Amino acid sequence: MVRPVPDAFVAFDVHVRARQQEYVDELCALVRLPTVSAQQSAIQETARVVLERATRAGFAATAERVAGGPPTIVGEQGSGARTLLVYDHYDVQPPDPLAEWTTPPFEPTVRDGLLFGRGTSDNKGNLMARLQAIEAYKAAVGPLPLKVRVLFEGEEEIGSEHLHEFARTYADRLRADGCIWEAGYKDAAGRPTVNLGLKGICYVDLKVRGTTLDAHSSVGGIVPNAAWRLTWALASLKNERDEITVDGLMEHVRPPSAADLAVLERLPFDESGWKRIHGIDGFVGGLRGTALKQRYFLEPTCTICGLTAGYQGDGSKTVLPAVASAKVDFRLVPDLTPELVRDLLRTHLDTRGFGDVEITPHHGERPSRWPADTDVAKAAVAANRAAYGTEPVVYPLMAGSGPMAQVCDQLGIPAVGFGSGNAGSANHAPNENIAIADYIDHIRAFGRFLHAFAGNAV
Amino acid sequence: MVRPVPDAFVAFDVHVRARQQEYVDELCALVRLPTVSAQQSAIQETARVVLERATRAGFAATAERVAGGPPTIVGEQGSGARTLLVYDHYDVQPPDPLAEWTTPPFEPTVRDGLLFGRGTSDNKGNLMARLQAIEAYKAAVGPLPLKVRVLFEGEEEIGSEHLHEFARTYADRLRADGCIWEAGYKDAAGRPTVNLGLKGICYVDLKVRGTTLDAHSSVGGIVPNAAWRLTWALASLKNERDEITVDGLMEHVRPPSAADLAVLERLPFDESGWKRIHGIDGFVGGLRGTALKQRYFLEPTCTICGLTAGYQGDGSKTVLPAVASAKVDFRLVPDLTPELVRDLLRTHLDTRGFGDVEITPHHGERPSRWPADTDVAKAAVAANRAAYGTEPVVYPLMAGSGPMAQVCDQLGIPAVGFGSGNAGSANHAPNENIAIADYIDHIRAFGRFLHAFAGNAV
Repeated sequence: MVRPVPDAFVAFDVHVRARQQEYVDELCALVRLPTVSAQQSAIQETARVVLERATRAGFAATAERVAGGPPTIVGEQGSGARTLLVYDHYDVQPPDPLAEWTTPPFEPTVRDGLLFGRGTSDNKGNLMARLQAIEAYKAAVGPLPLKVRVLFEGEEEIGSEHLHEFARTYADRLRADGCIWEAGYKDAAGRPTVNLGLKGICYVDLKVRGTTLDAHSSVGGIVPNAAWRLTWALASLKNERDEITVDGLMEHVRPPSAADLAVLERLPFDESGWKRIHGIDGFVGGLRGTALKQRYFLEPTCTICGLTAGYQGDGSKTVLPAVASAKVDFRLVPDLTPELVRDLLRTHLDTRGFGDVEITPHHGERPSRWPADTDVAKAAVAANRAAYGTEPVVYPLMAGSGPMAQVCDQLGIPAVGFGSGNAGSANHAPNENIAIADYIDHIRAFGRFLHAFAGNAV
Repeated sequence: MVRPVPDAFVAFDVHVRARQQEYVDELCALVRLPTVSAQQSAIQETARVVLERATRAGFAATAERVAGGPPTIVGEQGSGARTLLVYDHYDVQPPDPLAEWTTPPFEPTVRDGLLFGRGTSDNKGNLMARLQAIEAYKAAVGPLPLKVRVLFEGEEEIGSEHLHEFARTYADRLRADGCIWEAGYKDAAGRPTVNLGLKGICYVDLKVRGTTLDAHSSVGGIVPNAAWRLTWALASLKNERDEITVDGLMEHVRPPSAADLAVLERLPFDESGWKRIHGIDGFVGGLRGTALKQRYFLEPTCTICGLTAGYQGDGSKTVLPAVASAKVDFRLVPDLTPELVRDLLRTHLDTRGFGDVEITPHHGERPSRWPADTDVAKAAVAANRAAYGTEPVVYPLMAGSGPMAQVCDQLGIPAVGFGSGNAGSANHAPNENIAIADYIDHIRAFGRFLHAFAGNAV
């Protein structure tokens, strides 16, 4: 499968590989900043560092903000027929539980070729790698063959509340012909992957308030019980075959095209690896093969994330709970939106006599899915094929969520994602890591991607 | 409605009323002992005090025990054609939450005619009142006209685990023609009540273990979720009309007789008071009138007492829980037993594909229900009518549970209950109390009960 490398990228790879230690050291300096947006820690300092680094990479950049939002770095450089937008975020998840880290989260450490530290994978690694790739391109290949714009935000890990308004306000500095989104991961078999969008999310609390106070359970035969009401309401949302039964919801799910199904059929999916990792005998409803992949990549989810009611200690307490609540998350595919799901949920519950179930909305993001035949997607596939010497796996949609719609759907910019992560990168978890080899390969792939998206063969 | 009092009980009442302060002081001394069986606190000391007090009241009594059980007081005195067994327990519930007591639980305090303290109602008050009534009978009426046996146990509040074996071992010292059970309560309208048995209980944990660890909720479309499995399993146990749907369970419920229905029809039940106390608009399934009373008194319950799964904090955490569990209590009527309910539940879950739902049994007690026309029930009604000057309300079964079957069903002793509690006695809760007037009236009623059960008019 190894293809001939254009001469320019021989020099590019030599340039990059010679600077491996320098590149990693630079990333480590960024990872040492504890940029936990949930705690508003080191946000201003990190924004300054990122602005300075982007400027040093040649960007005419500024830190901007909308009311209430964090400093957000916007910049551009280069010229050409095409414009590329690079989206990354400089904030990270909280490092808890600290005790489970082998080495401290903000003291980046190399072990067995892996670099450990909070943000190495999500998403400081990709942010830094792309700036380094742009510098390397200019040094080893030549002037940038396209205009490159950057958007580095600082509240992705807390829901990007201000990003929609920011993208609207700064649209003139963000518009582009394609966008590279924050991340991508080698799969469990070590294959490079490219993704064409993200699911949305609609996270809600469902709460039932029954009796004024907890009651003695001896009245359970006649006094309404909040925990039963919640149980029945939940059971009406998804049936035992794990099919979502919220009235009307599945009607808004865009059916897979013949092309989608053909893609899914070919898509590698390590069913036995999944079963082993999760310790399960099988998937919901006995799904496997293409039907399983269709459910995973192209259908919405409805997941109970938490349940709370009454007595939860050891042994027995005979109590009828006054309050019961559930946390439920829906992952959304086109054409579902958080607003639509909340409306359908309210109507569904009311229609079935569950007007007593209160809905409190939390996190909400729209899905964002892009075709496989956009120029930016084709450039990503070509660049990965060239850099890795193997055909990348193309995911039609990632099962996770992010603020892609706020930028790309709002401004009409086709998006694609690939990056330096691996199947065990442990984003949001203890011992987050990337392989140093993957970091360098992402720089190599990103340089080729710039070249390809400008219309050149790679 | 006031009826003429037989002469003997004029003297009895004078004797009792003259000793009100002495009687209450004696109860207060017993309440000061913190006899919390769950913490094995003051058990030996209280058993000694109770044995000494029973002996002083004329009982030939000893403290006995079976292996692992607490000291249990057994005694007898008097003679006649009939034998009465008096069941009470000297242990109490833990006083938590302490902060909600107006005065400390083990410092009995009188306010507005009410005596507050842990155990005043459940059940040290009745235990002491009955010993005082026996002494008063002998002093003011004459020699006891029947044999009276006592059974005072010390682990009722933790499930009376050893009582079945105790009653079997000491059967010869416990057999009787009738049994007065521990307690009874004036209803919310202030009417004296008599009860003819207790529901049983079958308390279980239901637990589902799904994935090895909590997973990211993005896999919720294809990876089995313990919280969903639990929700569906629970929803199969009781439907939205609050009807128990465990396969075969309702077939074991003894149907009400025509006499039962006639009793229920006449039974006062303050529906609006219940709604007010619990802050509810109506009862389950829109029940009211006789149907409501039938559900409450003569049908089993299935109550979710607690739910636990996944993330229960503020805001959102996108997690697919590895484990989910529920605490469920069934209150049992004849002919259900805890063993039968657990077997039916296991078969029901297995039949419906919920073999993954583990059942862990906790507290289990059989129901114990006795007819209204036994001699001991008729004596109780007559005694209450005479003492209170009004017709008592007769409950065919109490909605709560207790170890009545271990004693009365095992030894074939018809039981009845009445006592010194009120509708706000707050058993098991902070600020447990009895009215001092009710305490004295229980002594007055109990003296008459001894007289009536021996075959005399009251």
